[in-house]
Amino acid sequence: MRALVTGGAGFIGSHLIDRLIGRGDQVVIIDNLSSGNVSFIQHHLDSGKATLIHGDVTVFDDVMGAMAGIDCVFHLAANPDIRLGTRITDTDLKQGTLATYNIVEAMRRNDVPKIAFASSSVVYGEDAPLPTPETHGPCLPISLYGASKQAGEGLISSWVGTFGLQAYIFRFANIIGTRGTHGVIFDFIHKLKNDPSRLEVLGNGMQEKSYMEVGDCVEGILHVMSSADAPLNLYNLGSHDTASVRRIAEIVVETTGCHGAKIEYTGGDRGWAGDIPRAMLGIEKMLSTGFDVRYNSEEAIRHTALALIEEIGLDRR
Amino acid sequence: MRALVTGGAGFIGSHLIDRLIGRGDQVVIIDNLSSGNVSFIQHHLDSGKATLIHGDVTVFDDVMGAMAGIDCVFHLAANPDIRLGTRITDTDLKQGTLATYNIVEAMRRNDVPKIAFASSSVVYGEDAPLPTPETHGPCLPISLYGASKQAGEGLISSWVGTFGLQAYIFRFANIIGTRGTHGVIFDFIHKLKNDPSRLEVLGNGMQEKSYMEVGDCVEGILHVMSSADAPLNLYNLGSHDTASVRRIAEIVVETTGCHGAKIEYTGGDRGWAGDIPRAMLGIEKMLSTGFDVRYNSEEAIRHTALALIEEIGLDRR
Repeated sequence: MRALVTGGAGFIGSHLIDRLIGRGDQVVIIDNLSSGNVSFIQHHLDSGKATLIHGDVTVFDDVMGAMAGIDCVFHLAANPDIRLGTRITDTDLKQGTLATYNIVEAMRRNDVPKIAFASSSVVYGEDAPLPTPETHGPCLPISLYGASKQAGEGLISSWVGTFGLQAYIFRFANIIGTRGTHGVIFDFIHKLKNDPSRLEVLGNGMQEKSYMEVGDCVEGILHVMSSADAPLNLYNLGSHDTASVRRIAEIVVETTGCHGAKIEYTGGDRGWAGDIPRAMLGIEKMLSTGFDVRYNSEEAIRHTALALIEEIGLDRR
Repeated sequence: MRALVTGGAGFIGSHLIDRLIGRGDQVVIIDNLSSGNVSFIQHHLDSGKATLIHGDVTVFDDVMGAMAGIDCVFHLAANPDIRLGTRITDTDLKQGTLATYNIVEAMRRNDVPKIAFASSSVVYGEDAPLPTPETHGPCLPISLYGASKQAGEGLISSWVGTFGLQAYIFRFANIIGTRGTHGVIFDFIHKLKNDPSRLEVLGNGMQEKSYMEVGDCVEGILHVMSSADAPLNLYNLGSHDTASVRRIAEIVVETTGCHGAKIEYTGGDRGWAGDIPRAMLGIEKMLSTGFDVRYNSEEAIRHTALALIEEIGLDRR
């Protein structure tokens, strides 16, 4: 199969490409390298099994140029920084909604039949029951990032209904792991690298979410795609439990060896406007395909902290 | 109150403005007059109670120029032609999604606190149980118009969650009535005006949806807004029953007096790709506010047919 991976030099994208190439696919990558990193995929470029188009999914011609001969698009490219929407309001619109329009429209014009899309648990908003099943409604996202993911889902769904596209929409839990380029564990390690004596935590630390290891995530994507074959397939992907931000801070402090670090909370029930204090995906539908995760939330956090300490280059004490 | 009505020279907008001015509001209208008609609002412009900005909601500066001193925005402007998305894929993106972004962003910059948004039953897609309650999920629209309405809901919801906007989102049934500028009854009368001997109906005529008279619709909007005061209020607005396209064709033929007209069906279970064959909104939540419609679907259709025959200028036989 010839796959196009948008955001393929990024965190989840590069892990997905490892699996795709491992199973024998040819991979085309489009990435603007704004948060992705060529080093994540260099060995695949060197082996000739992957090609990198240094382009931007917000530019329609760049997307058109990547579509020739593609059998399936894995659309992962997006602004990775959810908080940014509180300051700059058109980033998610452009890098989320408009980019997804570019993708599905270029697919239509090139007769590319299948897409897998990285959506997010944040489309459910903050009033959903926990764990939240795929059937929850109404979905009322509270972040601009969430709005762009929901808009992307709707665009894809309308291309399925109007133009016969086949789609897999995955609503991800918090995905963490090696090569992480953002997120709470990444931030904590950077803070401790700058100042090992204190760790500032946004909010009161009681925010509680479920975390999924990135290897589990990409394995889940490929398993679901080999198990389900409806025109439109929507699945939550997550783990079995949650962890609090307070617990993450403790694990990171412990793992870094910064035992004297004072954990300081900025207060309030959420990290920023648009942050969802508590989130946990219902994963019955995912489990029903025969797929299960290897790591629960706390194991994934510990595994990720160890890997990122290495990658970020913090000397463990 | 000083209200801004986008698409205020249009079908629903002009009826809403009648009520707003009737209750003493000052009204600013922004409309590009692409499907709206100044004659619908001319008397309010003449009386000085309404001001028309001949501008476009897809142009951010036009929207900014309309926001000064506004207390509440009624955002009704949109591409009214759902079928168009099957041929031109960026109309709903621009006139729906991007326009709604312009609205909420201009509201944020001008400290405008409240919005009412015309969404649609089509956000539910085609696999929803009937009647469909607001709590249905997942919402997977099959038309590009539906995708743009869902994206608009998400943008508004994220501005509520991130910037403290207050919002009323209304998912409309098929709204019909005087001054209609599009839709199945409008189309049928135009067809019979061109050729009174036959009436072509897209699909097999078994499509069945619920219809709401436009006066009921705007009354419902204002009633809900005076009854509910949460940060985000989401309501279906519809009537108690449905009518089939076949029944509408019969009523229009009967009402026009074109008794010899042969009704011809193009066949297939839907009018076009992205059309939803069966739709009926659950209206328990609407009814719980104490509001009820005056017309059921068939009454609204008959009432509308009589009015549009007059407006379109078909001589009744």
